[in-house]
Amino acid sequence: MTMGVSLTRKELFDVPEGVIYLDGNSLGVLPKGAAERAQKTITEEWGAQLIRAWNSAGWMALPQVVGDQIAGLIGAPAGSVATGDTLSIKVYQALAAALTMRPERKVILSDNGNFPSDLYMAEGLIKTLDQGYALRTPAPEEVMDAITEEVAVVMLTQVDYRSGRMHDMAAITKRAHEVGAVMIWDLAHSAGAVPVDIAASGAEFAVGCSYKYLNGGPGAPAFIYVRPDIVDSIAPALSGWLGHDAPFAMELNYRPANATERMRVGTPPILQLAVLQEALKAWEGVDMADLRAASVRLSELFISEVEARCPELTLASPREAALRGSQVSFAFEHGYPAMQALIDHGVIGDFRAPNIMRFGFTPLYLDEADIIAAAEVLEDVMSNQLWKNEKYQTRSRVT
Amino acid sequence: MTMGVSLTRKELFDVPEGVIYLDGNSLGVLPKGAAERAQKTITEEWGAQLIRAWNSAGWMALPQVVGDQIAGLIGAPAGSVATGDTLSIKVYQALAAALTMRPERKVILSDNGNFPSDLYMAEGLIKTLDQGYALRTPAPEEVMDAITEEVAVVMLTQVDYRSGRMHDMAAITKRAHEVGAVMIWDLAHSAGAVPVDIAASGAEFAVGCSYKYLNGGPGAPAFIYVRPDIVDSIAPALSGWLGHDAPFAMELNYRPANATERMRVGTPPILQLAVLQEALKAWEGVDMADLRAASVRLSELFISEVEARCPELTLASPREAALRGSQVSFAFEHGYPAMQALIDHGVIGDFRAPNIMRFGFTPLYLDEADIIAAAEVLEDVMSNQLWKNEKYQTRSRVT
Repeated sequence: MTMGVSLTRKELFDVPEGVIYLDGNSLGVLPKGAAERAQKTITEEWGAQLIRAWNSAGWMALPQVVGDQIAGLIGAPAGSVATGDTLSIKVYQALAAALTMRPERKVILSDNGNFPSDLYMAEGLIKTLDQGYALRTPAPEEVMDAITEEVAVVMLTQVDYRSGRMHDMAAITKRAHEVGAVMIWDLAHSAGAVPVDIAASGAEFAVGCSYKYLNGGPGAPAFIYVRPDIVDSIAPALSGWLGHDAPFAMELNYRPANATERMRVGTPPILQLAVLQEALKAWEGVDMADLRAASVRLSELFISEVEARCPELTLASPREAALRGSQVSFAFEHGYPAMQALIDHGVIGDFRAPNIMRFGFTPLYLDEADIIAAAEVLEDVMSNQLWKNEKYQTRSRVT
Repeated sequence: MTMGVSLTRKELFDVPEGVIYLDGNSLGVLPKGAAERAQKTITEEWGAQLIRAWNSAGWMALPQVVGDQIAGLIGAPAGSVATGDTLSIKVYQALAAALTMRPERKVILSDNGNFPSDLYMAEGLIKTLDQGYALRTPAPEEVMDAITEEVAVVMLTQVDYRSGRMHDMAAITKRAHEVGAVMIWDLAHSAGAVPVDIAASGAEFAVGCSYKYLNGGPGAPAFIYVRPDIVDSIAPALSGWLGHDAPFAMELNYRPANATERMRVGTPPILQLAVLQEALKAWEGVDMADLRAASVRLSELFISEVEARCPELTLASPREAALRGSQVSFAFEHGYPAMQALIDHGVIGDFRAPNIMRFGFTPLYLDEADIIAAAEVLEDVMSNQLWKNEKYQTRSRVT
């Protein structure tokens, strides 16, 4: 790729007129084919084929088919990624399995920058097990030193949802394995955002969601990767019938399905899977190194434009591109109303408590002109203190 | 309702031309509004409002809004039913919570007619807990006597997926409570099929799915009911961020949300929930006693027609209507190819191993003429041994 040439495939997406969308790290935009695909699934498959569609329309295989598409984006071999459920459920599956691999150790190590739901799920599992497990959450930069021989499992989100800070996947996994710990990576802000080579990392598990950079739509299914050489020894905690070796034999006892299929649980959400499968077509032929280069270029441009225009804002992401995912955050005391004002003026980012204005960069549908235009609007909001308007002060449940 | 007057609301559903669908107990038919609702959710909400739709389109509240719609169909008060995930996940949540309520007891009682996934999830939880729990699965008719003071939790599916046999919810719950056990009802084949008064039963938990009689579509979300007086003491095993009291405060520790909201886990499947919400409109104004009367009438008619026409088939459901849900099963040694032949001739039922031909009765879109027509086709399949055709012998993964 020539430097400066855009990677955008804007023509594949429906971005609303007059909107610059810097929140693809929270909910990706609508792929053009999604509505038609949903129609087809609803009328031609569900409506016309009814129960037969589980075979005739390929519904039963869809979780694995979509899993293989995602596998290609995270450096995982075909057959090693299962889709379904939510990311929180996949975290629980991975963690429960990992703990059984190191029964003599009682420490789960994460960090205090991890997405809260990952920590909550660990907390719930620990309480449920009631076997003396402890969750440690040092600061992200102290994680490496906290990986000791007491640690059963290291569970980290590669890219920090708040700051965009990125853990060194290879180095941390290596360290975890040196002390005999199992490694789980949450790729929520990595899949489709940065190049990931999960197989090369050697990590035992990875999990992620598909409604952010993968544009699968609201509540799109999650995914789980299990390293192929260990998957056959995993006894799933959430042993649902679709993870059974013969779901329709209706046996009374659970026998895990082959390989990663065993991480399936209940009846898959076909409508959401179909839309996700359609969304993933936008990734065909995308070289993740090119995507990364474009992401870094957009991020750097945004930082320099905002720092030049908005002295009120403080960069809250690592300045060095190599340490960042595909987002940039700025801290501002009045970040909440400032973000509401910005959104009201056509630039959509989001706010994360306590004071973070967060901007995601998605080269599939953003180019440099968008970034400059966004910085201009942000400058207007800041220099004219538009955020002081009463209407931007009310906090909603979802931000 | 006058005896014999049909309850059908066929005009609300798209049943394919030339098909008589007796498999609404597996996957309900397509409600006419579903496709349009999916379009609206995809283009007007996701596409146009993007991340803002979590507030502006009411997505965040949708699981509870839909939960309240389902509550109305199972005799549960508003606010007591949460939706999301799959039925298997909801079984796990209910069971894990129930076990913590009777920490000194180690027996989970179910029956060997329960849907295998419920048993598998119990097996997975028992293994994960590793605290000496045992799962007992006597025959359904021996359950009542097996409810002893050793039992921590009684977990049963009210209507047997294979035979349609129905447990006496009031009597079993009463017995469970007499010995101090917690009661969990799986309403997969009850919700929208038979009148349920879960509040009157006094059961602590109920779970169910919405893609059968509720017509929510393939992989539609599950639901969980928790008795209001105990819900605030439940510490959810699957403690995801959307079950947190303040999901967007991004606290490091889990604090359960109010009431049944705490049974939410991860990001809800908005597309599937929207379609389900639309599907539930068909239930507005339906009196469940009328529905039950129509269901019994259709079932009785089918039994008498089939017994008169097909001596090869043996009734595998209770003959007494009061002991049956809204399905009728017949045993036949060659049930698999016979069902394939029947489907090929326009009457869709399904097969359950080892030898059960299963027929579901859904008065919202079936009338007496359909039942007689179906029996005629079945007679043709049986008396002319159409099932012997080579093409009906190949077993698929999904039946």
